[in-house]
Amino acid sequence: MITRQQQIAAQKKAAEMIRQAGITISDDEIGSIEVVDFGLSNLDREGVQVLTLVQTQRISIKVLALFPNQTEPEHWHPPVGDDPGKEETIRVIAGTVYFYVPGEDTFKEGFIVEGKADCYTMRKEVVMKPCDQLTLAPGEKHWFQVREEGAVMYSFSTIARDALDQFSDPAIERVTKVVDG
Amino acid sequence: MITRQQQIAAQKKAAEMIRQAGITISDDEIGSIEVVDFGLSNLDREGVQVLTLVQTQRISIKVLALFPNQTEPEHWHPPVGDDPGKEETIRVIAGTVYFYVPGEDTFKEGFIVEGKADCYTMRKEVVMKPCDQLTLAPGEKHWFQVREEGAVMYSFSTIARDALDQFSDPAIERVTKVVDG
Repeated sequence: MITRQQQIAAQKKAAEMIRQAGITISDDEIGSIEVVDFGLSNLDREGVQVLTLVQTQRISIKVLALFPNQTEPEHWHPPVGDDPGKEETIRVIAGTVYFYVPGEDTFKEGFIVEGKADCYTMRKEVVMKPCDQLTLAPGEKHWFQVREEGAVMYSFSTIARDALDQFSDPAIERVTKVVDG
Repeated sequence: MITRQQQIAAQKKAAEMIRQAGITISDDEIGSIEVVDFGLSNLDREGVQVLTLVQTQRISIKVLALFPNQTEPEHWHPPVGDDPGKEETIRVIAGTVYFYVPGEDTFKEGFIVEGKADCYTMRKEVVMKPCDQLTLAPGEKHWFQVREEGAVMYSFSTIARDALDQFSDPAIERVTKVVDG
């Protein structure tokens, strides 16, 4: 749960980071930035800010902004009907992103959110800098995090059905509740 | 046909425009910018510069740079096997793009390439500024052009099969021949 005031502040901060990264967005688009706390009510620790630029029945284009030391929880994109699941390419625009995917444990630079080792099981580390890209196959578990400088990246994918994403942390709900205040 | 020297100069010019528009690209990516003359050997008049960022079996992400007064010829994306054809969303990042699509003739600001009225049949005009977007359904004929300032835009789409695109101008060949010189 976040307050409306937190939501607006996070949208503004994310918009500044996105523009600072050189990405052209309109003032109208700022209000559509989704502030996602994954139902954990600890946005600064586990969360992400998402601006969806394109969402059709076939593709989805998003700009993701991560605040300093924020972690996006481990999740994967399951099959839906005839769709094998979302295929997603990340392209980092600003900052350094520590990305974790299936494979040999090379965990070194990252940190595990306190008390949540069971919720962050992928430990193959990919350190991504601006212009670096990585493509996730449908169903591939992944999570990512940033340090003090935060990061901005694109997510280019087949159709996104965020509400159907699956998470390793059973406490997560993909819908963020926004309350007055 | 273009010379290798023309190709390199056009890549460099396109890269400058892309970076000027705030889009982060690596030095390595400059050399992969495709300089397309559509086989017409008149790049400044009819042509486009294309940097492909992502090309998978499902999606394609490109940055398009148009030089001053350049026109991208009228074309459409046909069905291929089970694929109904490429669905494409254009997002303008810098400059003004004059886009022509099916519908009522509202042609006003554009110009038709000399002697080629038959090759530019779509005359519904959409004037696009930075942050404006437009989604083209598969099979929808379209062409676009720019003025003195040129333009930079994203093309977010389902899988691109450029070599299978169809053009109104029978003289066009999608593969650009690059010769020594």
